[in-house]
Amino acid sequence: MDVVVNASTLDALTVGLDTVWVLLSAFLVFFMNLGFAMVESGLCRSKNTVNILAKNFIVFALASISFWVIGWGLMFGNGNPFVGLTNLLFANGGVDEGFDAISWTRVPFWAKFIFQLVFAGTAATIVSGAVAERIKFLSFIVFALVLVGLMYPVTGHWIWGGGWLQSLGFWDFAGSTVVHSVGGWAALAGIILLGPRLGKYRADGSVNPIMGHNMSMVTLGGLVLWFGWFGFNPGSTMGVGDGSAIAHIAVTTNTAAATAIVAATVTAWLTVGKPDLSMIINGALAGLVAITAGCAFVDVAGAAIIGLVAGVLVVLAVPTFDKFKLDDPVGALSVHLVNGVWGTLAVGLFAIDGITGSATGNGLFAGGGLTLLGAQALGVAAVGGFTFAVALAVWGILKAVLGVRVTREEELGGLDRGEHGAEAYAGFQIID
Amino acid sequence: MDVVVNASTLDALTVGLDTVWVLLSAFLVFFMNLGFAMVESGLCRSKNTVNILAKNFIVFALASISFWVIGWGLMFGNGNPFVGLTNLLFANGGVDEGFDAISWTRVPFWAKFIFQLVFAGTAATIVSGAVAERIKFLSFIVFALVLVGLMYPVTGHWIWGGGWLQSLGFWDFAGSTVVHSVGGWAALAGIILLGPRLGKYRADGSVNPIMGHNMSMVTLGGLVLWFGWFGFNPGSTMGVGDGSAIAHIAVTTNTAAATAIVAATVTAWLTVGKPDLSMIINGALAGLVAITAGCAFVDVAGAAIIGLVAGVLVVLAVPTFDKFKLDDPVGALSVHLVNGVWGTLAVGLFAIDGITGSATGNGLFAGGGLTLLGAQALGVAAVGGFTFAVALAVWGILKAVLGVRVTREEELGGLDRGEHGAEAYAGFQIID
Amino acid sequence: MDVVVNASTLDALTVGLDTVWVLLSAFLVFFMNLGFAMVESGLCRSKNTVNILAKNFIVFALASISFWVIGWGLMFGNGNPFVGLTNLLFANGGVDEGFDAISWTRVPFWAKFIFQLVFAGTAATIVSGAVAERIKFLSFIVFALVLVGLMYPVTGHWIWGGGWLQSLGFWDFAGSTVVHSVGGWAALAGIILLGPRLGKYRADGSVNPIMGHNMSMVTLGGLVLWFGWFGFNPGSTMGVGDGSAIAHIAVTTNTAAATAIVAATVTAWLTVGKPDLSMIINGALAGLVAITAGCAFVDVAGAAIIGLVAGVLVVLAVPTFDKFKLDDPVGALSVHLVNGVWGTLAVGLFAIDGITGSATGNGLFAGGGLTLLGAQALGVAAVGGFTFAVALAVWGILKAVLGVRVTREEELGGLDRGEHGAEAYAGFQIID
Repeated sequence: MDVVVNASTLDALTVGLDTVWVLLSAFLVFFMNLGFAMVESGLCRSKNTVNILAKNFIVFALASISFWVIGWGLMFGNGNPFVGLTNLLFANGGVDEGFDAISWTRVPFWAKFIFQLVFAGTAATIVSGAVAERIKFLSFIVFALVLVGLMYPVTGHWIWGGGWLQSLGFWDFAGSTVVHSVGGWAALAGIILLGPRLGKYRADGSVNPIMGHNMSMVTLGGLVLWFGWFGFNPGSTMGVGDGSAIAHIAVTTNTAAATAIVAATVTAWLTVGKPDLSMIINGALAGLVAITAGCAFVDVAGAAIIGLVAGVLVVLAVPTFDKFKLDDPVGALSVHLVNGVWGTLAVGLFAIDGITGSATGNGLFAGGGLTLLGAQALGVAAVGGFTFAVALAVWGILKAVLGVRVTREEELGGLDRGEHGAEAYAGFQIID
Repeated sequence: MDVVVNASTLDALTVGLDTVWVLLSAFLVFFMNLGFAMVESGLCRSKNTVNILAKNFIVFALASISFWVIGWGLMFGNGNPFVGLTNLLFANGGVDEGFDAISWTRVPFWAKFIFQLVFAGTAATIVSGAVAERIKFLSFIVFALVLVGLMYPVTGHWIWGGGWLQSLGFWDFAGSTVVHSVGGWAALAGIILLGPRLGKYRADGSVNPIMGHNMSMVTLGGLVLWFGWFGFNPGSTMGVGDGSAIAHIAVTTNTAAATAIVAATVTAWLTVGKPDLSMIINGALAGLVAITAGCAFVDVAGAAIIGLVAGVLVVLAVPTFDKFKLDDPVGALSVHLVNGVWGTLAVGLFAIDGITGSATGNGLFAGGGLTLLGAQALGVAAVGGFTFAVALAVWGILKAVLGVRVTREEELGGLDRGEHGAEAYAGFQIID
Repeated sequence: MDVVVNASTLDALTVGLDTVWVLLSAFLVFFMNLGFAMVESGLCRSKNTVNILAKNFIVFALASISFWVIGWGLMFGNGNPFVGLTNLLFANGGVDEGFDAISWTRVPFWAKFIFQLVFAGTAATIVSGAVAERIKFLSFIVFALVLVGLMYPVTGHWIWGGGWLQSLGFWDFAGSTVVHSVGGWAALAGIILLGPRLGKYRADGSVNPIMGHNMSMVTLGGLVLWFGWFGFNPGSTMGVGDGSAIAHIAVTTNTAAATAIVAATVTAWLTVGKPDLSMIINGALAGLVAITAGCAFVDVAGAAIIGLVAGVLVVLAVPTFDKFKLDDPVGALSVHLVNGVWGTLAVGLFAIDGITGSATGNGLFAGGGLTLLGAQALGVAAVGGFTFAVALAVWGILKAVLGVRVTREEELGGLDRGEHGAEAYAGFQIID
């Protein structure tokens, strides 16, 4: 039986497919919460495990609430080039209108919402690792609320919400800047205000390495994050089309991770003398962060080079931050900040105009001159300056009002007992 | 080239999309087996880890077989209001006819089957945690077979298989009652028959808290369960349509989890004095259980309230069960029974008629009066009464025939050595 | 509004759906890397954990690069019956032409590529477990590169790339032979060249069981693998159609795992006297490996029988390999080699012509005589002979050039310190 199709039937089918894709991608990105929780707790000491896990668990709950109450409206609401202003509260009750900047995807409102929500949650989680083993639980919670509810949406509005950077031709496909470097800048401010963990830097200036307590969990976390990134990057199409863009992005993403691992392994082998597992894993994450901005704008060879550079950068960044006594227990700055910046700039180098349909213009190495690279650099600086300054202020206020650092006794005895009255591995004999 | 479409082409495409959605959702629900295994083993002592893991692994295998052999037919076969009677065995070899109650979804037979199978498996897994650290391996296996093959399908028939509760206007979208409270009632009967673990309640009536041995695994399990719930609830549409229902359900589900976490954290902080990690995680699960019945029937604000209440309930329920010396090592009753009941009743309070297309009528707070609430209460009572009574009988028979409890020596020495001749963490120094 | 549909609109929608399915399946198969990492490290001793995890992490990176550079072209390029020859390098830059053998699926090139890539990675990972606790890191890396870049693609070309076995009527739907037995044969060659771990076999010929250090991780890994297999098998349709084939395959896959678990548990209970957890888990994997070849060619009852046999085989195979002093720390030979062979032959026994659309002809038990069984046996022998011989040569060259085995001191002290200067569980008291 042949039929003439009702247009709305075909429309519903198309939008239905797009929705399945966006939702499943959102679920994968949600699952990255597990990856972060395991990487961060595993790289720290067992006496702080419960604290880190509790932070990571609750931070996504708070992100879910604050992004619903206010964050979505600030980020995607119609407004001015700097912030969304319309239908601010409670994601407008699920009604689509007033959010023109994201009307390009035809999926239902709540599909857009949950996809953007899981991204917002990621930014806060990045901070969690960097301030681990010394932060007060309540202060972190308040900071996470401010970050997801207010700070992240503002810079997000600039880039994805129809704001001034978007107008200037700044491109960040899945959030090397919007998510990762924002998390990194906020973390940097926290690390500066908090100071290093007791015993990390010796009186003579040398570094006392503090070993993670569970490399099985770190590896698990790294692989879960890689898995989740297949939602993060390909899912950012927020639609399927004929499938060629999402397939392209899946391969650029995977390739950058692979070359970054190899580069990080070799670099670590050459500089430290051993193929260090935490460097291998952070290498993978570095490659994934770096390809996030450009995954839809570069070809597979470009992705391979972006990953190679990321793998080298992350291994060199760790001792560099230590030189400045910036104590980052999990390498969050080296992964998310350094490579968020690198990945964003790399769009200006490797972009190939229209490779998956976006009119980015060509990057420098594709013969496009410096225009795109300039816009990317401007965006990096603007978002970095804003986020770092505001984060420093928020952390400063928290320090004055609630205090941000646990007591010396609590830090030495472990935050698990001090903040939670619990231990992670009851019965196991542990010497910290 | 324009074409006139053959109706079957478009049909195949629609059914194909629905099948992809249902299968991927089923896979996510299957993955919840990992979540349960890790939450349950992590909250118990290391000396019983192998036993709990083995139980959780094998119980899904048994569920897969018994639901195929007999369970599916009892649940979805045409029959009378109380039980399915036609094509009982081996899921009718995969032939669709004779299962009218589930013909509303057009996905192929085996897609319906595997989706329903993973739900059935969940019910048995819930029991596993509640009876942990003292149950005989073989007795649990037999109970699980009876539960999945015979008990679960009967009450399932009442609600989803065209039975009497469905006719009366009882609504349970994804199984707060069908799955979670059924598991909870069966667990309660087991706990009563088994008695508490040695040393849990002191002679003076006070409670001796028994700490879990691996909070990293508990956290991992909690996040895996949350991830899997995105298959459990949105997947229960068993179709995609234009995507708006599944997106709605994803957000109500996530929001209830988030508010429940916050409520449980605050409640625990107020009652115990610390933000207890196991309460945070059980809070998330409580919110997820509670929103399962109503995820498609309430709006996001309603979901937020349902979750808030769930988070308070779970924290208050734990000491209440302890007061009655009902020893539930993992909090399964507080999560699945209490909040399965709460979530089912909440449909009667917060339902908004037709919000995603189901003709539930309005709940009390949406101006619908007490009709819906009454039906929900009747369903809770009927399913609870039936399941608890039959479970008590089955556990009683097992106690008489096989014995249900391991010896005192075995319990003290750990079930891993006693039942499996193994230990979970060879080489680690552990004091139990 | 009724419309006449443009053919390309409907085409794009169909291909879009297929792409979503293939990509999500690929992501699930990618996730199996986590499963292998946890099963393998958990079944070994804690002193070798970092080494095993590092191997598993980096091997997928290397697979990603070598399959892109050369493997894809050798496997799927047009050429002769033995190897692909056209557009060999860099997957032809993503251009589809020259790969006729895989043009039956209409998904975009990069979707085909990433799906095949994650399969290639699996073969190398299988080897990793078998040679654990004594292999030199660098030698394993080189072997993995050769396996994924050169060996796997050649036999893969014979079966899936339009080669001579495919022409002869050999059927392997998702890779019991292409992936699992290839990994198994390569592992067997490595085990022979390496020799057993120190202390595994006593002077009197008896076996000294070496316990795994973390059964929680092994269980986690087993469930992750089962989860990932829902991408491995149903995804191998590389398209959705009307959904009936993928639903069928999901159920045959799950059923074989379930019956294999029961069979392995009972067999272990009868032979060892206890329901051994590692046997339960390896039972599941054995069933999954065995059903991989025939999941689309047999009915659910056939799958149940294939799984039952697999569960018995895996339990009997472990002591058999030990009798020949073939020391396989994780049971990789028993799972992947024995059951890869069994599953491939089982197609010749249980296949039902056209059950999901493939013209396999009937197997012996479906009245088809010995034709299919003969082709299957020939394929098993040819692939096994080739892979074992080449692997033995490659391992032999590595032994001569780099050495394959760590020193006695390093093996006793653990590869984590020797090769990586690290330990997996800092702070924990461990006696190896």
